[in-house]
Amino acid sequence: MKIALCQLNFIIADIQGNANKIIKAIEEAQTNHCDLAIFSELSICGYPPDDLLDYPHFVDQCLFEVNKIAAHVKDLAVIIGSPSHNKNKFGRKLFNSAFVIQNGEIIHQTNKTLLPTYDIFNEARYFEPNTNFETFIINGKKLAISICEDLWNEMEIFNYQLNPIEELNKLSPDLIINISASPYNKGKQEQRRKIICNKALITKTPIVYVNQVGAHTDIIFDGCSMFINGKGEIIHQLPAFESCIKFIETDIQNTETNTSIPENTEINQLYQAITFGLKNYFQSMGFKKAILGSSGGIDSALVQAIASDVLGAENVLAVMMPSKFSSQGSVSDAIQLSENLGNPHQVIPINDIFNAFENSLQPIFNDLPFNIAEENIQARSRAVLLMAISNKLGYILLNTSNKSEMSVGYTTLYGDMCGSISVIGDLYKTEVYQLANYINRNNEVIPESIINKAPSAELRPDQKDSDSLPEYKILDDILELYIEKQKSIEEICHHGFEKILVEKIIRLVNNNEFKRFQAPPILRVSSKSFGRGRVIPLVSKW
Amino acid sequence: MKIALCQLNFIIADIQGNANKIIKAIEEAQTNHCDLAIFSELSICGYPPDDLLDYPHFVDQCLFEVNKIAAHVKDLAVIIGSPSHNKNKFGRKLFNSAFVIQNGEIIHQTNKTLLPTYDIFNEARYFEPNTNFETFIINGKKLAISICEDLWNEMEIFNYQLNPIEELNKLSPDLIINISASPYNKGKQEQRRKIICNKALITKTPIVYVNQVGAHTDIIFDGCSMFINGKGEIIHQLPAFESCIKFIETDIQNTETNTSIPENTEINQLYQAITFGLKNYFQSMGFKKAILGSSGGIDSALVQAIASDVLGAENVLAVMMPSKFSSQGSVSDAIQLSENLGNPHQVIPINDIFNAFENSLQPIFNDLPFNIAEENIQARSRAVLLMAISNKLGYILLNTSNKSEMSVGYTTLYGDMCGSISVIGDLYKTEVYQLANYINRNNEVIPESIINKAPSAELRPDQKDSDSLPEYKILDDILELYIEKQKSIEEICHHGFEKILVEKIIRLVNNNEFKRFQAPPILRVSSKSFGRGRVIPLVSKW
Repeated sequence: MKIALCQLNFIIADIQGNANKIIKAIEEAQTNHCDLAIFSELSICGYPPDDLLDYPHFVDQCLFEVNKIAAHVKDLAVIIGSPSHNKNKFGRKLFNSAFVIQNGEIIHQTNKTLLPTYDIFNEARYFEPNTNFETFIINGKKLAISICEDLWNEMEIFNYQLNPIEELNKLSPDLIINISASPYNKGKQEQRRKIICNKALITKTPIVYVNQVGAHTDIIFDGCSMFINGKGEIIHQLPAFESCIKFIETDIQNTETNTSIPENTEINQLYQAITFGLKNYFQSMGFKKAILGSSGGIDSALVQAIASDVLGAENVLAVMMPSKFSSQGSVSDAIQLSENLGNPHQVIPINDIFNAFENSLQPIFNDLPFNIAEENIQARSRAVLLMAISNKLGYILLNTSNKSEMSVGYTTLYGDMCGSISVIGDLYKTEVYQLANYINRNNEVIPESIINKAPSAELRPDQKDSDSLPEYKILDDILELYIEKQKSIEEICHHGFEKILVEKIIRLVNNNEFKRFQAPPILRVSSKSFGRGRVIPLVSKW
Repeated sequence: MKIALCQLNFIIADIQGNANKIIKAIEEAQTNHCDLAIFSELSICGYPPDDLLDYPHFVDQCLFEVNKIAAHVKDLAVIIGSPSHNKNKFGRKLFNSAFVIQNGEIIHQTNKTLLPTYDIFNEARYFEPNTNFETFIINGKKLAISICEDLWNEMEIFNYQLNPIEELNKLSPDLIINISASPYNKGKQEQRRKIICNKALITKTPIVYVNQVGAHTDIIFDGCSMFINGKGEIIHQLPAFESCIKFIETDIQNTETNTSIPENTEINQLYQAITFGLKNYFQSMGFKKAILGSSGGIDSALVQAIASDVLGAENVLAVMMPSKFSSQGSVSDAIQLSENLGNPHQVIPINDIFNAFENSLQPIFNDLPFNIAEENIQARSRAVLLMAISNKLGYILLNTSNKSEMSVGYTTLYGDMCGSISVIGDLYKTEVYQLANYINRNNEVIPESIINKAPSAELRPDQKDSDSLPEYKILDDILELYIEKQKSIEEICHHGFEKILVEKIIRLVNNNEFKRFQAPPILRVSSKSFGRGRVIPLVSKW
């Protein structure tokens, strides 16, 4: 059986555009004499559609386009993901469905059973779970469809009595198909391969896995669609972070291993994910140029290097905005970075602006001593400048905050927290250094002086991050245990950290939820990024 | 049977503090010879605890405190809401439970069946639904417990086969208890009364309803706990927006109507909700003073009047920050308002600051014409000033945006969109006028000149809102049909609006999701407020 694995980038709510993309791929599959073309989960509307599903005409439009596509289906069968109406007497009004189309008609529908409702996933908010399992015949082969997490029953949240893979296996299919919208995070590609290969092994049935590729603001889908034989061996894997259609023959290769998984280190995957996410963001916004504040520190340097790679150096404007507290090294390091990368750059000192604010505030501030108010005026004046250039010249402002400082609130709201998208907001500071060194692996792109200097916000004389925070290795370990692993203070202390320090850090994390609530969307590369996947009360005594 | 209805304000995650509050109330109920004291849904941890439930030690601490409370329970029975572990083999790991305590021991546990998962509610993210219905005996009476939405089975999203109220009714209880955390929105008090009274009528069983009171940043809980007899008549209703404990006798009054629902118009409820929400926000943050930009327009005037009512006029600092585009009337109207209210006020012209920005940007802007960049510099300079005073003097910055402008993006991100809390961000402009007139019902608090002037952002010469937007009555009607009622363009046009206008408005709403993503939390008073209850893709082709 010849199958087209259509690993495509479906734009959320561009229902007609997605339908056209699907029709084009079907034609290509037809030309290549395929028996079946498979598209990813909710391909008709893109994933995740979120509360657009609450709009009845949104779902109607999806179904309208599915039926329009059906008219184009002649010599092969097609599987498309779409929301659908639950016509049963009871239950939520929608299903997360896969439609099988043949000869211009929908001949089969499978609904999703295991609805992820944790982190960035909220499927139980919209969909009724499936309880009914059936196969269907294409070219004399008995096929079974599962949808994304239906293969992930070992996850703790899917601790249900109904295991879709067991139910499907009872029907002895010749092939199990899984249509998916499974986002990237660190370690996910390996985890996913392991889980899906294991399902093929358990069921002794080959699996065709088709995943979405593309990024929707914060959420990055990496593709890596696969064909796995009945021994759990990967016969084909499609590339990561790339739209493509691959034609595979499921019969002849059923026993051969032909794995072509590219060598890919975790740091390389991480870099690919961030650049891919950023590229998709600019494409979806229809923008080509970025602006950022280039402080001479490691965070903005990393973002500048990433953006230059994604957009081209000439499309990234670096703005140095020294105050009286900036070291000379900061500006010269930043200029060196821009020259290394080939970015246009501008130096706009903020002293006059700062003085204008100070003069205007003098009647209120009187002789009160310099404190966080003046520190923040500097950070916020920079944001006003960057946003003004963004507004005037059509640049997107990139946020350069990292996850460590976002965690403890070591950032200025409406200041360095500004930006349309946070590029490295899901990277702890130690990961920022790792990625900077990765970028420098062949030649010194980011000046060593930037990598080696002690981190500082330079908002007051001789300020260093280490004045108020522990060294980043310790901070990041504590943060990860709390944020990703959801450990208690006592459990974190068992890892060898001082209780007084752990308590302080966790208090900072909890007390700064109000800042993060107003943060830009963050490219998500961990299993627990700040943003919609971490819903924490803004004010709590936790 | 004498019952204490404990309508209290439980702070999210202040588990020990909530436990102490519960113990104090139990002692009061004991002193008053009650047979039973009832506390609201998830009273031990406050509602909604959100993803804090993902932290295992959070749930453990709740259960620890419930057991500690049990030791205090002697001469009466107590019902407390708490998360609990699901010890069954299958299902999600937690239940949303009610524990019945008697003689120092937990004698009964009921779990919630109908888990709301829409708008601001995400209970299916955490909890396994109940399938098991039992009664228990207190003082010879057979009691049944339901939890909040368990009485709301007619809601479309609860279209399940299992109807808790039917199941409980089969057990013929003498009394049905409902512990609840049901937030306020416009019309909710009437809706809630109707639904709960109807359940008493259907089951011919009296209902004791105990709701949470208090506000958690954006979500406002209004209390209005009730005792309803078996004919569906309200015998007692506790006050709205007020912590209180009421002792009722369920036996003797079973047939008498003694309704004491205070006369309360919808506009009065709305005003109460907003002032109560704001008061709770300041209490929970531990702040007493607010600052806001006072433009001489209706939005900031309304917020200033509300804040003065909540915090005391002396604690609200109004800052007028005229630019060269501000009309003289704007400053004088704003000063008049502050004088009417008795607020301290400051005038800080922003011309020098604006010029400092313009000079600094001159090398980049060259001779490009004045546009949105310069407009936004003004709005953002004001935000820098307000935040500086906030940081220096310990004021909370109040956001003064309304829902109409938030909907269409007629706001400046990091400018007038700044603030710790949005006071009127869930009120359409037409509602802003209604509430301003309500405040002026007895005497002119908000100067008529502010109410009567044509709305303008005053960011360029002779700017008026009506330059780019239809009149607010039309705009607001379209917005409500789209945002609250989730109607399609076609359906909205059926209400008599021009298609070209409706399309433009809806495109503006959809295209400005990225701005709202970074907006402050908004006091929620409608059934669909912007914020966590409306999860829309940031970039979509919708």
